[in-house]
Amino acid sequence: MQVDINELEEKAAQARLASKRLSFVPSDVKNEALMAVARALLEKEDFILRNNEKDYKEAEASGMSRAMLDRLMLDSKRIKGISEDVKTVAELPDPVGEIIEERTLPNGLALSKRRVPLGVIGAIYESRPNVTVDISVLCLKAGNSVILRGGKESARSNLALAGTVQEAAYRSGIPAGSVQFIESTDRSLVDRLLKMKDYIDLVIPRGGAALIKFVRDNAAMAVVAGGIGVCHLYVDRTADTRKAAAITYNAKVQRPTVCNALDCVLVHKDIAAGFLPAMAKDLAKAEVELHCDHRSLGILKSVPGLNIRPAVDEDWGKEYLSLVMAVKVVDSLDEALQHIDRFGSGHSEAIASEDENSIQRFLNEVDAACVYANASTRFTDGAQFGMGAEIGISTQKFHARGPMALREITSYKWCIRGNGQVRP
Amino acid sequence: MQVDINELEEKAAQARLASKRLSFVPSDVKNEALMAVARALLEKEDFILRNNEKDYKEAEASGMSRAMLDRLMLDSKRIKGISEDVKTVAELPDPVGEIIEERTLPNGLALSKRRVPLGVIGAIYESRPNVTVDISVLCLKAGNSVILRGGKESARSNLALAGTVQEAAYRSGIPAGSVQFIESTDRSLVDRLLKMKDYIDLVIPRGGAALIKFVRDNAAMAVVAGGIGVCHLYVDRTADTRKAAAITYNAKVQRPTVCNALDCVLVHKDIAAGFLPAMAKDLAKAEVELHCDHRSLGILKSVPGLNIRPAVDEDWGKEYLSLVMAVKVVDSLDEALQHIDRFGSGHSEAIASEDENSIQRFLNEVDAACVYANASTRFTDGAQFGMGAEIGISTQKFHARGPMALREITSYKWCIRGNGQVRP
Repeated sequence: MQVDINELEEKAAQARLASKRLSFVPSDVKNEALMAVARALLEKEDFILRNNEKDYKEAEASGMSRAMLDRLMLDSKRIKGISEDVKTVAELPDPVGEIIEERTLPNGLALSKRRVPLGVIGAIYESRPNVTVDISVLCLKAGNSVILRGGKESARSNLALAGTVQEAAYRSGIPAGSVQFIESTDRSLVDRLLKMKDYIDLVIPRGGAALIKFVRDNAAMAVVAGGIGVCHLYVDRTADTRKAAAITYNAKVQRPTVCNALDCVLVHKDIAAGFLPAMAKDLAKAEVELHCDHRSLGILKSVPGLNIRPAVDEDWGKEYLSLVMAVKVVDSLDEALQHIDRFGSGHSEAIASEDENSIQRFLNEVDAACVYANASTRFTDGAQFGMGAEIGISTQKFHARGPMALREITSYKWCIRGNGQVRP
Repeated sequence: MQVDINELEEKAAQARLASKRLSFVPSDVKNEALMAVARALLEKEDFILRNNEKDYKEAEASGMSRAMLDRLMLDSKRIKGISEDVKTVAELPDPVGEIIEERTLPNGLALSKRRVPLGVIGAIYESRPNVTVDISVLCLKAGNSVILRGGKESARSNLALAGTVQEAAYRSGIPAGSVQFIESTDRSLVDRLLKMKDYIDLVIPRGGAALIKFVRDNAAMAVVAGGIGVCHLYVDRTADTRKAAAITYNAKVQRPTVCNALDCVLVHKDIAAGFLPAMAKDLAKAEVELHCDHRSLGILKSVPGLNIRPAVDEDWGKEYLSLVMAVKVVDSLDEALQHIDRFGSGHSEAIASEDENSIQRFLNEVDAACVYANASTRFTDGAQFGMGAEIGISTQKFHARGPMALREITSYKWCIRGNGQVRP
């Protein structure tokens, strides 16, 4: 343990040191390094897959669920996908050095607000090995060093991927030490890492609610927490029911295990009898289980072939991450807004409506990272938003909110040029 | 105590509740409310000054220093100044609702990134009573509720000022509860306040290093810490010594008790013999005490009339907040950059130079909120930067850096309008 802690300290110190040089590395060097990483991932495919296979077999033997095994698994196609994502990041504009604002004061001082890297980013994540590469290349592109601490289940895969990134990046002019990988999966090292505020500027936890809570409660530095999405769709009295049903189906079924999947549909009472049976029949084809309040249950109980049950208190504000959804009939837009205010997690909320006033009120009054009118909550995603990639989705209001990509892992500084000005 | 804690909880809950309505209050209502506050401050001058006099007399009897007494004291002219500052904030553009970014995706989704209030801001501050008003009106203008916890020394003044703000603002359409003032000066209430992350989005400590450290170490919510400035001026080999001396004098002497005052001059060895005596003679007129490294001491010891002594280790990286300054001769720009990297606090750093390469390197490589070329560090100030006011100066790289005004106490949300789009 003591050896591990000393190693951890040393790695964090190296990351800090490297970050000072990394912040001045020119865009073309960073981009070429990322292209080298993209190539190296393909060249090292056998090595990476061998390590992933060991992780997979061990996880399988330990009784890991199919869904989790699928998240862990790499194959030739997925490696190619990861490599392509690296190229995409290489092609994005470099945020570092961007002039955010410029002005000349009456006294002649020329102010320029310039984008700079944050410094050192710590990433604590679970399971999916591609995160090792995604986060590394986003951090490098934005001029930040990164300290990676992945999950135990994918330890060998992560080590192989991180090693591939390090080797290719350092050979291409990225300062050695910019990418640090913590091999030990001892939990107490995370405790220690979260106290290293002199070395680490920001920690991004990516994983389940327990991990995020642990990091928020224990980190001495800034944390961007997110990834918990209790998402609602309010189907207004004026909704186009065909659109609303299609949005519901997509948001619930297309990928139920992710944070922007739908958890609860709130339906205006005037449209409930017309909308709910059609919606429920669609969802039944995908074997979605509906937890219904008494009014929606009253409407749906006579529809054959549905998997429905009465909702309990715990259903409101629950993130299912599975093919389960809550349903509630509301009297008004106001009741829907109150429900979302009380039970939403500030991630993604949607309204289906053809009434401009209702749409405007919903967009204005819902306090969430992403508020939709007549579209699926599944679009909350950096790549979908045209940001090229994402390092995570923030449900905080501080620093960055919603999908976070390159700009969201930068800071800025004011540069002021004068000619001897002093303050009167 | 239990009564106080219940009251604290209730006030925080009220602030949260009010913030939801405050976030939609139109600009003209907010602006008129601020103008009403500006008028009320003048109308209630007698009441405010009577309360301030009690604070002042008690502080004087307790042996408070002249400088601190001066910070505490209000008079007719200062009240007028505070009132004018409120008008200035009223006239600034409303940040809420600003469209930061807009784009339409290939699938027709219209994205709009809109500025929104942060929610509830906690302000923990010491001594100067004008802070009560400054922070309140900045928070209200940006649509945020505020919870004020001022210092013990100015308790009566703060209460009178906060009451004046509340009365005038609520009468003008600001939701009641938007400005909360914690009367009890029991320290343990601050502990409790710092745990209320469900009610408070951001805490801004304004005061000495001990207060800031306490808040950073104990707050469960986001903190913007700043106000500690260890500021350097590097006088390059190519500096215009006349300008450099004027900048030194201004940055050290004009207001030595504030965070953007100069603490240390680093002088290139080639210019030290020519520059230091002139600089030191100027400073001697203002009775500045110089703590000199051995090389600068060697140059200055033969100059009559100076107040100089050898520097000790503690002089490097020290924020004096008084008429004391450290002086060091360096061999190169690189040595100056290394010194600043090691001992600077990330607040304000300056170079005096006539060489474009040195200036560019300094502006690029120094990692601080504000980096100056040929100007006094005293300009680091929201009003000086043209931001109209400031709620504090951040030395963090997360969320906001440098002077913080209205925009810096906002967040944003993504509004997405579609026509039934679902994710493929």
